[in-house]
Amino acid sequence: MDPIDKVVELFATLPTIGRKTARRLAFHLLRQTQESVETFAEAIVHMRESVRECTVCQTFTDRELCGICSSERRDRSAICVVEQPTDVMAIERAGDYRGLYHVLHGTLSPLDGIGPDDIRLMELMSRLSGISEIILALNPNVEGEVTTQYINKMVSTLGIKVTRIARGIPIGADLEFADDATLARAIEGRVPV
Amino acid sequence: MDPIDKVVELFATLPTIGRKTARRLAFHLLRQTQESVETFAEAIVHMRESVRECTVCQTFTDRELCGICSSERRDRSAICVVEQPTDVMAIERAGDYRGLYHVLHGTLSPLDGIGPDDIRLMELMSRLSGISEIILALNPNVEGEVTTQYINKMVSTLGIKVTRIARGIPIGADLEFADDATLARAIEGRVPV
Repeated sequence: MDPIDKVVELFATLPTIGRKTARRLAFHLLRQTQESVETFAEAIVHMRESVRECTVCQTFTDRELCGICSSERRDRSAICVVEQPTDVMAIERAGDYRGLYHVLHGTLSPLDGIGPDDIRLMELMSRLSGISEIILALNPNVEGEVTTQYINKMVSTLGIKVTRIARGIPIGADLEFADDATLARAIEGRVPV
Repeated sequence: MDPIDKVVELFATLPTIGRKTARRLAFHLLRQTQESVETFAEAIVHMRESVRECTVCQTFTDRELCGICSSERRDRSAICVVEQPTDVMAIERAGDYRGLYHVLHGTLSPLDGIGPDDIRLMELMSRLSGISEIILALNPNVEGEVTTQYINKMVSTLGIKVTRIARGIPIGADLEFADDATLARAIEGRVPV
């Protein structure tokens, strides 16, 4: 296969990249120096090699414990539950939240065959001692709602306050792409489930 | 620097990719297997290593002579002059043109200090024996027009017919992104300069 066509095809498998953009990216790289293309390729491979999941909160990190879980300045009595590591980054950028996180790496979706054992629910259960509040920050769709209700029921006997972020986020949108102000307000206005 | 941030920053240097998309691409790669990320990285490096410019027409190829220049089924009396290798691919996709190409790798732009020696004009002059028609397919903007006039003047004493593709292409648009039908019609309706 032609080396350019191969790169175009691989770029086109990435989200948001169509064939025309893929072609444009491939030709852009052809105009860069060999060295800078190698730097690009090495950064990608290094990232994939070195980044793993935090043993506590399951977000992506290049250490055993992520920067938030190992920080002494975080409120260790609150856990914000999100779907993806990108959601942790989005809430951190919003800047108001000082507690811990837990990344589920998905949501319950019975129709797709994704049950409680397919997301990191047991890992969440195992770290609830000393926790006084669980803030559910899942995407505002059916799967997010199912997962919210499941977690609320799961921890109902533990005497932990369960809240969810305010529904200020437009329905159908990705939490990852909400603007900082909206996200900060949604966390501030969280309500009991 | 954090390995994820580094990849996000590198992705964001690519054309059409903003920071949010760059983040999305980085996290997409984190969810792929190590093997497929390596395949992706290797394809990029291999492309940059193996692709060079055709010694005749100057388009990108992984051989000394590109597939078009080495083909016996092309009309060797016509040369279509374009700015970039992507333009060759666009016209080939349109499917009607059977002659050869010449890639300038740019256009004359006195304001940016790009003169005749900075693009592949001499390489074009050196291959004009036996050529009966030069079809100029440059982008419809000031630089394209300046370059068109310069080439027309440069070859005026050689008795070669100089045409340009019809201005069916919307002014200000990139030739690379024109649709096939428009491009095919523009080549068919070419007129003397």
